[in-house]
Amino acid sequence: MDKSLPNRAIEWRDRQLVLLDQRLLPGTVEFLHIDSVEGTFDAIKDMVVRGAPAIGVTAAYGVVLSALMHCQLDESSAKQQIDVDITHLSKARPTAVNLAWALTRMQNCLHNQGSDFLATLEKEAIAVHEEDIAANKAMGELGASYINEQSVVMTHCNAGALATGGYGTALGVIRSAFAHGKLSKVFANETRPWFQGSRLTAWELEQEQIPVNLICDSAAASALRAHHVDWIIVGADRVAANGDVANKIGTYSLAVLAKYMGKKFMVVAPTSTIDLNSAQGDDIEIEERDRQEVTHVGEKVMATEGAVVWNPVFDVTPAELVDVLITERGAVENPNAFRIAQLFSNKDV
Amino acid sequence: MDKSLPNRAIEWRDRQLVLLDQRLLPGTVEFLHIDSVEGTFDAIKDMVVRGAPAIGVTAAYGVVLSALMHCQLDESSAKQQIDVDITHLSKARPTAVNLAWALTRMQNCLHNQGSDFLATLEKEAIAVHEEDIAANKAMGELGASYINEQSVVMTHCNAGALATGGYGTALGVIRSAFAHGKLSKVFANETRPWFQGSRLTAWELEQEQIPVNLICDSAAASALRAHHVDWIIVGADRVAANGDVANKIGTYSLAVLAKYMGKKFMVVAPTSTIDLNSAQGDDIEIEERDRQEVTHVGEKVMATEGAVVWNPVFDVTPAELVDVLITERGAVENPNAFRIAQLFSNKDV
Repeated sequence: MDKSLPNRAIEWRDRQLVLLDQRLLPGTVEFLHIDSVEGTFDAIKDMVVRGAPAIGVTAAYGVVLSALMHCQLDESSAKQQIDVDITHLSKARPTAVNLAWALTRMQNCLHNQGSDFLATLEKEAIAVHEEDIAANKAMGELGASYINEQSVVMTHCNAGALATGGYGTALGVIRSAFAHGKLSKVFANETRPWFQGSRLTAWELEQEQIPVNLICDSAAASALRAHHVDWIIVGADRVAANGDVANKIGTYSLAVLAKYMGKKFMVVAPTSTIDLNSAQGDDIEIEERDRQEVTHVGEKVMATEGAVVWNPVFDVTPAELVDVLITERGAVENPNAFRIAQLFSNKDV
Repeated sequence: MDKSLPNRAIEWRDRQLVLLDQRLLPGTVEFLHIDSVEGTFDAIKDMVVRGAPAIGVTAAYGVVLSALMHCQLDESSAKQQIDVDITHLSKARPTAVNLAWALTRMQNCLHNQGSDFLATLEKEAIAVHEEDIAANKAMGELGASYINEQSVVMTHCNAGALATGGYGTALGVIRSAFAHGKLSKVFANETRPWFQGSRLTAWELEQEQIPVNLICDSAAASALRAHHVDWIIVGADRVAANGDVANKIGTYSLAVLAKYMGKKFMVVAPTSTIDLNSAQGDDIEIEERDRQEVTHVGEKVMATEGAVVWNPVFDVTPAELVDVLITERGAVENPNAFRIAQLFSNKDV
């Protein structure tokens, strides 16, 4: 399989957004060519693309597609229409704050520019994308510096090249640590209900020949104990101002296990994932998805029609369970509101 | 749907073993008629029937089928052949000690009897079955006495009528507590990789009109917190002499969460599940099953061929995480070796 594939999950090509359809992995590698805001909205909502930074990058390109659609109008009408599209795009999924972050950045760019906004927006979206990849690489190195030789690590969901502009947040750290010869074993939790761990993470790591052990989510406690896991490394969909972390459902449980068993817990997220407007985790809207994600797997029916399902797809890990938050602007050990505010005020980093 | 169905998961009828094929639930209700030791072995190994007490009851009837097959031989040859079959049956699955317990009981019965062993074995197997149901009902009432009004409970896997001779261990307590009007909500974890929670527990409870909320295993931490769960109630596949509990993979994680969040953790298991020969949890063999249970769901492929899978289907919960162990001979609060030894020495209970 083409080793470069995972780095091409999102591409901007001939003024179209080309997305690897992550719903079909690992069986089928198929790309969707998107040329509309509605197509972008659906791709985010229906999880053609997922992962907080990837959603941000995708939305940024969505704004360029909006500009392409409306650039024949007079400047004021065009900008008004683009604003409408931006508001629409912001509602595609609720939890990942990178969506709002990228859209706000694009909106600022739009309104700071005259009638020649199209080229500027396109440049800005490409910058959002490239900066995300650069941030991932920086975080990869910084995170890897926390990992000792011969370490065993565990990750949850997919916070890899597929979830970002490229390279990955949690998987970026794992990639870097592996490149430095520090990892003896990697555990990937399958991550119900969407199987991001088995379908995406195991696939990504396999392509880079990083040996991975796939387990059911519920086997994490046994793996942590029996296989002497040193670090649990995850991404984030939103980090509150006090360091609480909204991430894939199951993360909270892993963080509690880590604390109880004396393992280390690392969150890897660019500052675009930190939402200073959410004071704490309880302020973050947690997306609940369709019951069918739980009751059906493909065609197979796992529960009767009558079963009531609760399907929150993210949870909140309290900051006190996080040993270190890795960002592209630096590491925040034992994160809290003060240290996170410091991170943002530190212009030198 | 026939409300009595769950109580007929195992039946002895016309000297045949009639098993509800639990692999096909909840979509299909189909019964297998088994008339051989090999058929019994396969039914246990391939999980037509599962759950520690149910495996014990099934194995007891398997010994009767062996006796039926060999009773034409002279007494000594017949008993020799039955012993061979008993050894064979004991290897069907490794973790549930009720298998060994029931087979030992049947073997003792065989060797304490003369040539007329068939009728005696049959009577003994029926007694194993009936005593299990009676034990479940007693445990149901005892366990329910620990539950306050308006309680929210969570269970994992299926420790119900389907997993026992009938009525259930953990679900027996939930049934009894519900009958006493004490439950405001029940959460059932879907229980990967075999989906016992969605396929069996949700189905059993629905049939008795006990309202159940089905969640992914990884949503347990969120449910415990957001829905104010009071008790986590599980069965067991083997309890060591010191009170360590081998049960379905994921139980250990739930017990840690309960301790961390100040929730109560109850294990419900008949004394036939307590193995005084296992001094502690580490002495218990943990079954690992095929990688395909994790990589495939029905026809759907979740992970590539190259993915290495670790699929332990049980884990060990240390005794210090258990608030109360409910048995048919009494409750053991904060179980340890001394209190469990006391339970067995107390002839009056």
